[in-house]
Amino acid sequence: MANLTRPIIEFWYEFASTYSYPAAMTINERAASKGIDVRWRPFLLGPIFFELGWTTSPFNLQPAKGKYMWRDLERTCTKLGLAFRRPDPFPQSSLLACRIALVLDSETQRQEFSRRVFNAEFSSGKQIDDPNILTALLQDMGCDAQEVLEKALAPANKEALKQTVNEAQSLGIFGAPMFITPDRELFWGYDRLDDALDWACRSSDRT
Amino acid sequence: MANLTRPIIEFWYEFASTYSYPAAMTINERAASKGIDVRWRPFLLGPIFFELGWTTSPFNLQPAKGKYMWRDLERTCTKLGLAFRRPDPFPQSSLLACRIALVLDSETQRQEFSRRVFNAEFSSGKQIDDPNILTALLQDMGCDAQEVLEKALAPANKEALKQTVNEAQSLGIFGAPMFITPDRELFWGYDRLDDALDWACRSSDRT
Repeated sequence: MANLTRPIIEFWYEFASTYSYPAAMTINERAASKGIDVRWRPFLLGPIFFELGWTTSPFNLQPAKGKYMWRDLERTCTKLGLAFRRPDPFPQSSLLACRIALVLDSETQRQEFSRRVFNAEFSSGKQIDDPNILTALLQDMGCDAQEVLEKALAPANKEALKQTVNEAQSLGIFGAPMFITPDRELFWGYDRLDDALDWACRSSDRT
Repeated sequence: MANLTRPIIEFWYEFASTYSYPAAMTINERAASKGIDVRWRPFLLGPIFFELGWTTSPFNLQPAKGKYMWRDLERTCTKLGLAFRRPDPFPQSSLLACRIALVLDSETQRQEFSRRVFNAEFSSGKQIDDPNILTALLQDMGCDAQEVLEKALAPANKEALKQTVNEAQSLGIFGAPMFITPDRELFWGYDRLDDALDWACRSSDRT
């Protein structure tokens, strides 16, 4: 019964987002150490950026900020002992990977698949818009890749992803990673993960 | 003689920048606890943003990001025990305050004046583009306010500020606060202050 009272934090991530990588690789362990469960919410930033008139990552639109981000991401990964390779091209097209992550049956599968995608992209330098790459990741997990891909590309799942992006916008999400506590506080960026977990613990204590 | 070997971190700040406020109010104490000295570098973000085609703060240009920032800044100030009042209008025009901070004779005066400006703006809700407000701050410090204002508005100081903005751009500065270590690593944002100080300590150990 104790498990029913554990706070749940929502982890909104985008496969093309650079700081979503260290978040994805560390969030479960850090949340578990504080007695918090994590619900992984894959979504797309592209449609949100597009409404601002941006057709690519802000890190490409602002070269000085982009240069800083790559250096900072490298420092962050070094600190965490995570392998890092700069994706080329950047950003990668994350649509297919996101549709697959969304359609997977269980939270466990979604998390496992998502970590494998981030690893393929930021550690192995693979192209995450390549169906063959994603098929191999699914097969490595023991999934029926063909069946998953068919469900991922079905109209119902495309609609589900649109709804998810709408939900993100209605929650006020403008970037990734975003952590949302049970009392709907938003924390943006990998460097706010611990703040978000601490907040979730405190707000859970108050209820 | 020991003082000669203390690492110096540069703290680049902009009076209109929201996260420069908690940085300004805490950096000296946190740096001192790690044996680091701080050199305060007032500059203007406006000309840098203008080159990106922005005519106001990105927090105004992106409403969802702006809404998040105000909430996050409020949380940050609460955590630090700092008073907080949202400046109106935002952003404040920081040109005159920046010219004064730049022209002051000593680092001690520059830091003291700058903290008073941040307090006036983010704690007392005062207009920092009002010469009377800035005059009062200088007088409270025991300065000859009239003399300082004249020097601040002299052509030599206007040129010095332009050179400072050029230096910021050549260093790759695109936002504030920015912390720069002796080995020229950039750390952006109040939430990276401790990372910057730790880096300065380690790089100093290596030399």
